[in-house]
Amino acid sequence: MPMLPDGTRNGPFAGVLIADLTHALSGPFCTMLLAELGARVVKIERPPAGDVARAFGPLVDGQSAYFANINRGKESIALDIEAHPDRELVRELVRRADVVVENFRPGTLDRHGLGYEALRQINPRLILTSISGFGATGPESWEGAYDTVIQGLCGLLSVTGFPDGPPTMVGEAIADCLAGTMAFGAIGAALFDRERTGRGVHIDIAMFDCMLTIMQCALAIHLATGTTPGRIGNNYPVGAPFGVFRTGAGDLTLCAASDLSFGRLCAALAVPALAADPRFAGPPERTANRDALRAALEAALAAHTAVEWVDELQHAGVPCGVVNTIAQAVEDPQTAARNMILRAGALRVPGNPLKMSTLADPPERRRAPAIDADGPAIRGELATSAGRDG
Amino acid sequence: MPMLPDGTRNGPFAGVLIADLTHALSGPFCTMLLAELGARVVKIERPPAGDVARAFGPLVDGQSAYFANINRGKESIALDIEAHPDRELVRELVRRADVVVENFRPGTLDRHGLGYEALRQINPRLILTSISGFGATGPESWEGAYDTVIQGLCGLLSVTGFPDGPPTMVGEAIADCLAGTMAFGAIGAALFDRERTGRGVHIDIAMFDCMLTIMQCALAIHLATGTTPGRIGNNYPVGAPFGVFRTGAGDLTLCAASDLSFGRLCAALAVPALAADPRFAGPPERTANRDALRAALEAALAAHTAVEWVDELQHAGVPCGVVNTIAQAVEDPQTAARNMILRAGALRVPGNPLKMSTLADPPERRRAPAIDADGPAIRGELATSAGRDG
Repeated sequence: MPMLPDGTRNGPFAGVLIADLTHALSGPFCTMLLAELGARVVKIERPPAGDVARAFGPLVDGQSAYFANINRGKESIALDIEAHPDRELVRELVRRADVVVENFRPGTLDRHGLGYEALRQINPRLILTSISGFGATGPESWEGAYDTVIQGLCGLLSVTGFPDGPPTMVGEAIADCLAGTMAFGAIGAALFDRERTGRGVHIDIAMFDCMLTIMQCALAIHLATGTTPGRIGNNYPVGAPFGVFRTGAGDLTLCAASDLSFGRLCAALAVPALAADPRFAGPPERTANRDALRAALEAALAAHTAVEWVDELQHAGVPCGVVNTIAQAVEDPQTAARNMILRAGALRVPGNPLKMSTLADPPERRRAPAIDADGPAIRGELATSAGRDG
Repeated sequence: MPMLPDGTRNGPFAGVLIADLTHALSGPFCTMLLAELGARVVKIERPPAGDVARAFGPLVDGQSAYFANINRGKESIALDIEAHPDRELVRELVRRADVVVENFRPGTLDRHGLGYEALRQINPRLILTSISGFGATGPESWEGAYDTVIQGLCGLLSVTGFPDGPPTMVGEAIADCLAGTMAFGAIGAALFDRERTGRGVHIDIAMFDCMLTIMQCALAIHLATGTTPGRIGNNYPVGAPFGVFRTGAGDLTLCAASDLSFGRLCAALAVPALAADPRFAGPPERTANRDALRAALEAALAAHTAVEWVDELQHAGVPCGVVNTIAQAVEDPQTAARNMILRAGALRVPGNPLKMSTLADPPERRRAPAIDADGPAIRGELATSAGRDG
C-alpha cells in the first residue's frame, strides 16, 4: 500500500509515490516532471552532502539555483544505501513506493542488494526506472557519462557548428533533459499498464539511445544514402533559406524554404530580382546555391534591425523570429502568459511545460528541500505499520 | 469502445487507439513513441499529398527516409477534415479513439468543428493532445513555429557557439523532438489518470515552454544573479576542464571539472606542473582560468590522437569520449547492442529508446505506410456498428 499523498497535490499522478534515488540532472529532471503532475517524490540523499547538484553554482544564500530548479516540490530524506540501518528504511520505502527512479551507473544498485530482482521481491508491482549514459546492456554499459560525452558519441557535435570550425557544444544539457523526459514518459506508460495488469517493470533508459533517436535528419540522410553529413553552420541540410541570418543589428531565424514562403520573403524584402533568379527558382536550386542566397539575403537584411524585420516578415506570413538572450526569453510576454517562470521559496524557477486542462498551474511551487528536511516526518511514517499490512 | 488492436502488438499501450492528426516532426515523433509501446496509431492524412514530411529528402525509391523514420509502425487513412463526408469518418474515429494527437496551429481544429469542446461531446473520455509552437494561450499562440525559430526565441541559440561568432543552430530539431517526447509523457499520465477516474483531458504542449524548461544552466544563472550568459564555445559555464578539446588528430569530449578527475587527467597526460599550478588549484580557479587551462591541455593532447587519448583517459577514470560522425555513431558497438538501428521495410530507421523488461524489441518494424495504405480496411471497420454500441 503506498504512503498517503500529502493532500495538497492534484494532477494525474496524485497518490503516486516515487522513491527518488537520483542526482545531478537526468534523474531529477524526470522526477521534477512527475512531481509537477502530482506525484509525491521522496528524494533519498546520501549524507552528509546529498545530491552533488547542491554544490553547482550559482548559489543564492547558500542554495544552488541549479538544484532549486529541478528539485522544487520534492521531499528529502538523508539515507545511506550502503549502511545499516538506513538500507532497511530504503527497502521499506521501496515496499510502499509505486516507482523507484535512479541514475547510478548500471550495476550500482545490484552491488548494494537493491537491484531489480531484489526490489521486486520486496514489491512485485514496483516500476524501477534506471537512467544511465549507455543503458544496462552492451559493451559500453559500464561507462559513466556526462551530457557532453553523449553529445559527442551520438554524432550531434559533428553536425553542430561551422564547416571551418570545430564540433560545437550545444549550450544546454539536452541529452540529460531528453533522457529524463523519456524516462518520465515510460513511467506513465508503465503506471497505466500496471493499472490494467498489475505488472511491475524495469525501465532502462540510456542517454545515448535517446540522443540517437533525435538524430532525425542526419540518420535519415546517412541510412538512406550512405553519406555522412557534416557541419553546415546556420543552414539546414534539406532546404533554403532556412536558418539564422545577420541583419543590420542582430540576428534572426528565418524558415522560408517553400516556394510560397520564399516568394513572400522576396516581396517583403523588396528584392524581386531574387525571386526571378534561376539559381533560386525552386527548393533544389535554393539548397544547392544556399551560400549565394544567404549573401544576397543578408545584403538586403542589412537595411534594418532584426526586431524590425521580424515584425515586417511576420506580417508578410514568413516564419521567423528574433534570437533572444536568456534575459529576453524570460521577458517575452509569452513566457508570463504561459506561467513559465514560477516562484519556489525565494528563487524563481522554470515552469511546468505539461499544460493540461484538468491540472492546476499555480504561480508558486514548494521550494527545493534542504537535505533531510523531511527526514523526521518520513522516518515517522515508515515506523508505523500503515504500509506493512498493505 | 475502442477499435480492436491488431493482435500483433504488445507493450503497455496495447489496445490503445490513437487518432493521429499530426504532420512534420513534433507530432509524428510523439505518436511514433506511442506506437513503439504498443498503441495502434491511425494516421489521418489530407489527400492527395498527405503529411508534408513525405516530400522531405532524401528519397529512396520515392519514399522519404525522414518520413520513414518517424512513421514506422503506423497505419494511414486519407481523410480531408474540411470536407463532408470525410469529417464524419474523422468524428467516428474520434468516438472510438482513446487519444487524438494534433499539431496544427492553435484554433485550426476549432475552425473545422473539431475543437476540444466538440470532440468531448463525441467522446467524453477522450485525451486530446495538441502540440504547437507557443501553446493554446498567450499573445504569440497564433504563430506557427519551426524548430529553428523556437531555438532562437528560448535563448538556446544565444548560448550555443563561440563568443566571437554568431548564435549557432543545433544540428538537429531538438525542440520538435523534445516537445513530442513531453506530449508522449503527458499522454501516458492522462491514460493512467483516466483509468482511475474516467476523466478525459486536453493536453496543450508548446515547443517554447518545453525548451525554456531545459535552459537549465542559463536560467539558473540568470534568475539567480540577473546576469545574462552568452556564448562560451566549447566550455561549460560552471566548471573546467569540461567540453570539447583538440588533440593531435580529432577532437574529444572531456569532463574533468572535479579535483579528483582533474588530478587523474594531469597524471594521465603526464603534466604534473598543471596539477601544481595555483591558477588551476581548485574548481573556481580552473573556471576563472579556463582559457589558459585549455591551451595547456591542448598542447599536451597534441601528442596523440583522440582515439588514443580516450582509450588512455578512460582507463585512468577520466570521463571522456570521441566525437563521432553520424556514421561512426551508427557503427558504435553499443548501437547494435542496444538494437538502436532497425529495419522497416527496405529502410533502416532509428530504434526505440524506451527499453522495458516487459517489452519485446524485435529488429524489424512495420514500414511507414503509403498514404491511405490502410484506408480501405479502416473505412470497413468504421462502417461496422462495433464501436457504436460501446
